[in-house]
Amino acid sequence: MYSIGLDFGGTYIKTGLLKNGQVKAFRKVRSHSGEGLLPVLETVKETVADLLIEQSLPFENCAGVGIAFPGLVDVDRKTVLSTNKKYDDAVNFSFQKWSEEAFGLPVAVDNDAKAALLGEITHGSAKNESDAIMVIFGTGIGTAAYINSRLLRGKHHQAGCLGGHISTDRDGHPCTCGSIGCMEAESSNWALPIIAREREGFEESLLAGESVIDYKSVIECAGRGDSFSRRLLDDLIGHWSAGIVNLIHAYDPETVILSGGLMKSKDLLLPRIEAEVHRRAWTPWGKVKFIVAENPEISVLLGLDALVRDLP
Amino acid sequence: MYSIGLDFGGTYIKTGLLKNGQVKAFRKVRSHSGEGLLPVLETVKETVADLLIEQSLPFENCAGVGIAFPGLVDVDRKTVLSTNKKYDDAVNFSFQKWSEEAFGLPVAVDNDAKAALLGEITHGSAKNESDAIMVIFGTGIGTAAYINSRLLRGKHHQAGCLGGHISTDRDGHPCTCGSIGCMEAESSNWALPIIAREREGFEESLLAGESVIDYKSVIECAGRGDSFSRRLLDDLIGHWSAGIVNLIHAYDPETVILSGGLMKSKDLLLPRIEAEVHRRAWTPWGKVKFIVAENPEISVLLGLDALVRDLP
Repeated sequence: MYSIGLDFGGTYIKTGLLKNGQVKAFRKVRSHSGEGLLPVLETVKETVADLLIEQSLPFENCAGVGIAFPGLVDVDRKTVLSTNKKYDDAVNFSFQKWSEEAFGLPVAVDNDAKAALLGEITHGSAKNESDAIMVIFGTGIGTAAYINSRLLRGKHHQAGCLGGHISTDRDGHPCTCGSIGCMEAESSNWALPIIAREREGFEESLLAGESVIDYKSVIECAGRGDSFSRRLLDDLIGHWSAGIVNLIHAYDPETVILSGGLMKSKDLLLPRIEAEVHRRAWTPWGKVKFIVAENPEISVLLGLDALVRDLP
Repeated sequence: MYSIGLDFGGTYIKTGLLKNGQVKAFRKVRSHSGEGLLPVLETVKETVADLLIEQSLPFENCAGVGIAFPGLVDVDRKTVLSTNKKYDDAVNFSFQKWSEEAFGLPVAVDNDAKAALLGEITHGSAKNESDAIMVIFGTGIGTAAYINSRLLRGKHHQAGCLGGHISTDRDGHPCTCGSIGCMEAESSNWALPIIAREREGFEESLLAGESVIDYKSVIECAGRGDSFSRRLLDDLIGHWSAGIVNLIHAYDPETVILSGGLMKSKDLLLPRIEAEVHRRAWTPWGKVKFIVAENPEISVLLGLDALVRDLP
């Protein structure tokens, strides 16, 4: 049986037909997530229908629909509990009802980082791991925890996925979540322009001449010898490492999986993050193993396939 | 059936005979934990024998021995994995062998904060909670997490109990665990003299005249109007609150149980901690409930009773 996977990202919605840990067909559509969920649902439905037609696959050959969402998800009621500036109208929307009407299929809904971690463990770079955490450096910083061969979920479905909102500097910047100095507020892609501009020396830096201030431009300017960008990058690495140590101390994993656009610079960053984490983490049993997600584009979809196959 | 409970604390070892969630007999002995575990074991054995004689109770009426330890504990191998300046010779000591030889009884060993949380949930102030965290303000800051009606343990037995070593200030003070700016390094009783003495205005403060700098003296001096101590207490409350928010974001509990000597000042502190945590925590489902442990002297022993009754 096939699964239909829908990964609702901030910029794109990735749709896929999945079977046995493989993506058999794939298409991206623009999400315009700032405008909400409802306006884009018809396009999603049509895209899935197109993929099925291309593959000459009837709905009856699909076991269900898996939906990944950037926010807090109630996996039992199959609704979104809370969002953070993306698809704000999705809260309490019944994906179950929608999926039944649109496809006549049952649905599994989960937080996107949890789906990504499950995808890496079932079919990706962390195959057969029993205890792992994932940190995804996207626009924000998404996390998930897998303990004793199960996704950690918690009473209100928010355990494991708020690692980006564990504070590494209680006197730091206000975060969109309501707390202060979260790893995400201090070192995420969305926070970078705020952090960079207020630092001494910004105006004279190479970075000030960049049209976009993000991970990519900071790393480029640092590579071109800009001392401001180098110090900024040092601080970012410090926050990421402190945040990862916090997650290790919280969840006791064997393995840390890093993912997201930032990992395009893994050759530069990983050795430094790894050294700093090993220096700080209290792990008398040995050293945490670092893995970079092999195929971050599809790990969420592969996790959704696993969730659909677990549907009762 | 009875259980024998042994709570190895930094200053005292509490021994108890337990039955149905009640402490039937109790005695404290000095632990001299800085000198190690082995020198004190004979005294512990004799104390247990005395308690049994007093209660006219033969060993055959005891189901087993429960041992709580301040450090990382391998509950399967029944050994200590790592300590932090208390009973340093306990690492890899076989409690199973010792208990069999000393008492002819099976043994359960666990981290002391985990035992305390289990005690509060089975017979204490948090009875029947399914999702709770505990924070114990003793010499250090011990924590434990109970998720989905089970103690969180993790791959290497260190999930949940390192909450005091989640950093709330990555540029802060070095911690005994090897990390920097841990809640414990910034706001524990052992860290207080270091933190207080380096702050501006210490020499002129009322606190400088105190023979001991600890939670108690800071709270007393703040109460007497000393502005230095007031600011210090404000910062402590800030770190505790940030640390508790981090634990809420990590473990998604319904309830936070606070315990330890600091809670003697709960009337002063709890309203402020509670307000600050509610202001910062991202809990769209509602508000975390705060509970102060009713009987912190014996919650560890009650948890040990539960662990012994779970022995195969």
